[in-house]
Amino acid sequence: MSRLEQIITSMVDIFLEYADDEGRKKQLNKDELKAVLEKEIQSEEFKQKISAEAVEEAMKMIDKNHDGEINFREFCRCVCELAKWYFQQKTGKGGKQGRGREGHEED
Amino acid sequence: MSRLEQIITSMVDIFLEYADDEGRKKQLNKDELKAVLEKEIQSEEFKQKISAEAVEEAMKMIDKNHDGEINFREFCRCVCELAKWYFQQKTGKGGKQGRGREGHEED
Repeated sequence: MSRLEQIITSMVDIFLEYADDEGRKKQLNKDELKAVLEKEIQSEEFKQKISAEAVEEAMKMIDKNHDGEINFREFCRCVCELAKWYFQQKTGKGGKQGRGREGHEED
Repeated sequence: MSRLEQIITSMVDIFLEYADDEGRKKQLNKDELKAVLEKEIQSEEFKQKISAEAVEEAMKMIDKNHDGEINFREFCRCVCELAKWYFQQKTGKGGKQGRGREGHEED
């Protein structure tokens, strides 16, 4: 399977897997999203790049529509938000330029 | 590596790999984006789910800022657009409901 296919199918798989647990099907509630972010991000190196601050910001962004349920579209936006952080940390480019440096959150 | 990590690192890797070819580094031009979409989506089953229409729509969306260069943020949006299509095809939910059916672009 090509890499882009893998990315896309994996995004859909993760979402459906966690969305299925409780509450409305095909919607993640906040706890389910939290579970995704906790269980599907494991390595220390990665956690350093995607800091707690990034996760928090992704959650805040998702919070925008205040319906308490996260649909696939919103989940995608959350993943993108994390990806942008990772990209920024890796390259020093894109997203909120400079912000990641001022803080130096990742001890 | 956890799945979400894999998704995120893979997105960044693909982007940087294709963005590095020509033109401005860390930006994809249209041809480079096309190359990503062609080379990184291979399977017939997947191509049926993500129709030419979806790719076109993703490209159009990206076109919005008209600077001819696609940064990582825009690339993410494009991947999400494709993911939403795939999700919709797989579940019959989310995104532009019903639209995928009217057309039946995928012979």
